[in-house]
Amino acid sequence: MRIETKKAHFTSPLYLESGRILEPYDIVYETYGELNKDKSNVVLVCHALSGSHHAAGLYPGDRKPGWWDKLIGDGKAIDTRKYFVICSNSIGSCFGSTGPMSPQYPSQEPYRLNFPVITIKDMVKAQKQLLSSLGIHEVHTIIGGSMGGMQALQFGVDYPHFAKSIIALAATYATRPWAIAFNKVAIEAIRRDPRFKNGNYNKDDFKEHGLDGLAIGRIAGHISYLSPASMEKKFGRAYVATDGLFELFGRYEVERYMEYNTSNFARIFDPLSYLYIVKAINTFNLARGYGSLYDAISRVEAKINLISFKGDMLFFPQEMEHLAKMLQRLNKKYSYYEIDSDYGHDAFLVEIEKFEDLIRDMLKEVDESK
Amino acid sequence: MRIETKKAHFTSPLYLESGRILEPYDIVYETYGELNKDKSNVVLVCHALSGSHHAAGLYPGDRKPGWWDKLIGDGKAIDTRKYFVICSNSIGSCFGSTGPMSPQYPSQEPYRLNFPVITIKDMVKAQKQLLSSLGIHEVHTIIGGSMGGMQALQFGVDYPHFAKSIIALAATYATRPWAIAFNKVAIEAIRRDPRFKNGNYNKDDFKEHGLDGLAIGRIAGHISYLSPASMEKKFGRAYVATDGLFELFGRYEVERYMEYNTSNFARIFDPLSYLYIVKAINTFNLARGYGSLYDAISRVEAKINLISFKGDMLFFPQEMEHLAKMLQRLNKKYSYYEIDSDYGHDAFLVEIEKFEDLIRDMLKEVDESK
Repeated sequence: MRIETKKAHFTSPLYLESGRILEPYDIVYETYGELNKDKSNVVLVCHALSGSHHAAGLYPGDRKPGWWDKLIGDGKAIDTRKYFVICSNSIGSCFGSTGPMSPQYPSQEPYRLNFPVITIKDMVKAQKQLLSSLGIHEVHTIIGGSMGGMQALQFGVDYPHFAKSIIALAATYATRPWAIAFNKVAIEAIRRDPRFKNGNYNKDDFKEHGLDGLAIGRIAGHISYLSPASMEKKFGRAYVATDGLFELFGRYEVERYMEYNTSNFARIFDPLSYLYIVKAINTFNLARGYGSLYDAISRVEAKINLISFKGDMLFFPQEMEHLAKMLQRLNKKYSYYEIDSDYGHDAFLVEIEKFEDLIRDMLKEVDESK
Repeated sequence: MRIETKKAHFTSPLYLESGRILEPYDIVYETYGELNKDKSNVVLVCHALSGSHHAAGLYPGDRKPGWWDKLIGDGKAIDTRKYFVICSNSIGSCFGSTGPMSPQYPSQEPYRLNFPVITIKDMVKAQKQLLSSLGIHEVHTIIGGSMGGMQALQFGVDYPHFAKSIIALAATYATRPWAIAFNKVAIEAIRRDPRFKNGNYNKDDFKEHGLDGLAIGRIAGHISYLSPASMEKKFGRAYVATDGLFELFGRYEVERYMEYNTSNFARIFDPLSYLYIVKAINTFNLARGYGSLYDAISRVEAKINLISFKGDMLFFPQEMEHLAKMLQRLNKKYSYYEIDSDYGHDAFLVEIEKFEDLIRDMLKEVDESK
C-alpha cells in the first residue's frame, strides 16, 4: 500500500457557518493506494474527535498504526488495491491542519481564543475544498465513525451529488444533551485549570503530563466510549494492589486504565483544539440551515448506510434508528444495521471484525451499480 | 410531625473494616414521629452520597425541605403518625457526624488525609451503635436509595436479626466499574485542583464558589444521576442564548443546569468528605468478608425488598435483578420491582409517586406479620 502525507495550503477564504472567515488555512492529509484514471475510486475517510489524518499504516518508530488500520489496506475491507483512500485532519484539530494554535495572519501569533468556532459543516466544506484542489469533484464513498460519521452525513446533506454512498458508524443526526453533558466535563475541567490561563497557556507549563483539565475531561469521555458491559469484562472489580483496598487513593483497575489513557492523551492533544472540536460536536445538527431534519434529509441523493452498536452509550442506536426511519419515510436509498457489541461507542474502532464485511459489501454495491 | 435533631457522642472506639479505629466520634441524627412503647415502630432511613440526616421537614428559613420529604411525614408512605423514623448523617460526611474535617483527638487539628477510610460496613456499624445507645436493638424497617440502599442491604447481611425488613432502591450488590469510573472523574478533579493542596486546603480559598475540582467531578456525577431520556425531556437541544450558538463558550441548557447545580453543591459540600464517601461507594461489596455473595446473602433473615428504576444509568436494574435472583435461589423472603421511569438514578429522589404505594405496602406487610 502506498501512503503519502501532504499538506495543502489554501489562500482563498473559507466562509464559516458562523459568518466568520478562515483565511489562509492548511489541511494535512494522507492518501492510501492510487487514484484511478477516471478518478472514480476515491473513498474519503473522516476522523473522530481525537483522531487525525493518519488512518492507516505504521509510521517508522511508532508502536501503533493508524486508527483504522484494521479496516484500510491492501486486501482489507477498504481495499487500497482498489480504492484511493483520503483522510484529512479536520480544521480545528491539532495535527497539522489549521487550528486554534496555528499562527494567525498577519501577526503570526497563535489564534487561541480568537480562532473562529468551527462546525461539522465547516469541516466538511474544508474537505470539499481539499478534494476540489486535487481535481476530485465526485467520490465513491465517504465513511467515518462518531464525529467522522457526522461529517459523512453532513456531506450527504450539504453536497447531495458529491458521493455515491455514505457510511456513518456510531453517530447521530444531532448531538443529544446526554453527549453534550459528557463534553461539559471537559469544557469546565479545561477552562478552570489555572494553567489554561483563558487560552493563553504556555505548553511548557504542562509538557510532561499534559494539562490536568484535559486529562480529567478525557476520563468522562472514556466513560462514554466504553459501556458497563465492556468495563465489566475488561476490569470487573479488580484492584491494582489488593492490600491497598483501604488506602484512600488505592485504585481499581478501571481507575488505572482511566489514568493511563487520559494522561497519555493529554500529552499529545492540544486543550484549545479539544474545546473547539467538542464545540463542533455539540453544535452538530443536520437540520440546521434546512428548517427541519425532514427537509435536510430530503436533499440526500447518495445511499446512506448507517451502522450503530448496541452498547453505544454516547450515540445510542435509537438515534441512528431515528435517522433510518426518516430515510425510509422519504423513500431514500439507505441501510441500517445495529451491531451486537458490548464494546460501547469504541466498537467502531476496535471491533472491526464485526462490521468489516458489511463495509466491504457497501463499497462493492457502489462498484456494481456503475 | 415532631422533628428533633440531635448529636450523639461516642467515646468507645469504632473498629473499622480497615483495621483502624475511629475514636471518639459523633453522629448527628434527626427523628420524626414518636417511638412507641415496645419500640417496635422504628424505621431507619439511610442517605445517599450527598444527603444528610435532614430527610424530611422544612427548617425555618430553608427553601427546600429534607431530601425525602415527599415520602416521610404524617400520612405519607412512611407515616410518622405510625412510625418513629431515624435518619443519621453518615460518618465520613460533612453535616455534623465525624468526618475528615473533624478535629482529631487529642490535637484537635482536622484529620484531613489522616482520616481512616470508611466503608459502607463501617457506616452501618456506626448507625447500629447509635441505635443501641438509644436503647433500640431491633428495627421495623431499614430503607435507603443509592448509597442508602447499599447501607440497608449491608445491614441485612451484617445484622440478620436487626431489621424485619429492608428496602433498597436504586442500589447494587457491589459497585461495578462503570460507577467507579464516574467517581474517578471526581477523585482526579479534586486531587488535581491546586487549591486542594493534598487535603490541606483553606476553605476561605474557595468560599464563594466552592472547589472547582468538586464542581467538575459533580458534573460527571449528575450525568450518571440523569438519563438520556430525562435530559432529552428536560433540555433537548435548547440553547441558553440562541445568538450565542457560534460563541465558543455559549451554552446549551443542559450545560447551564450542570453549572448551576454543581457550583451550588461545591459551595456546601466538603471536598475531603466527597473523596471519603466516594471511596466507601467504590469499595462497597456485600460479599467482602463472607467469601462470596452467595454466602453473604445466605445470612439474611429480613425480607429484602428491591426497587430498581428502568432508566438508572448508575446502578442498572440488572444489578438489582442479580441480587433478586440470588435471594430467590437461596429461598429468602424478597420482592423485586423495576419501576418504569425516565428519570434515571435520580428517580428514587424525584419520582416518589411511582413507588410510594409500594413502600407503604412493604411497611404494612411487616405490621401485619406481627
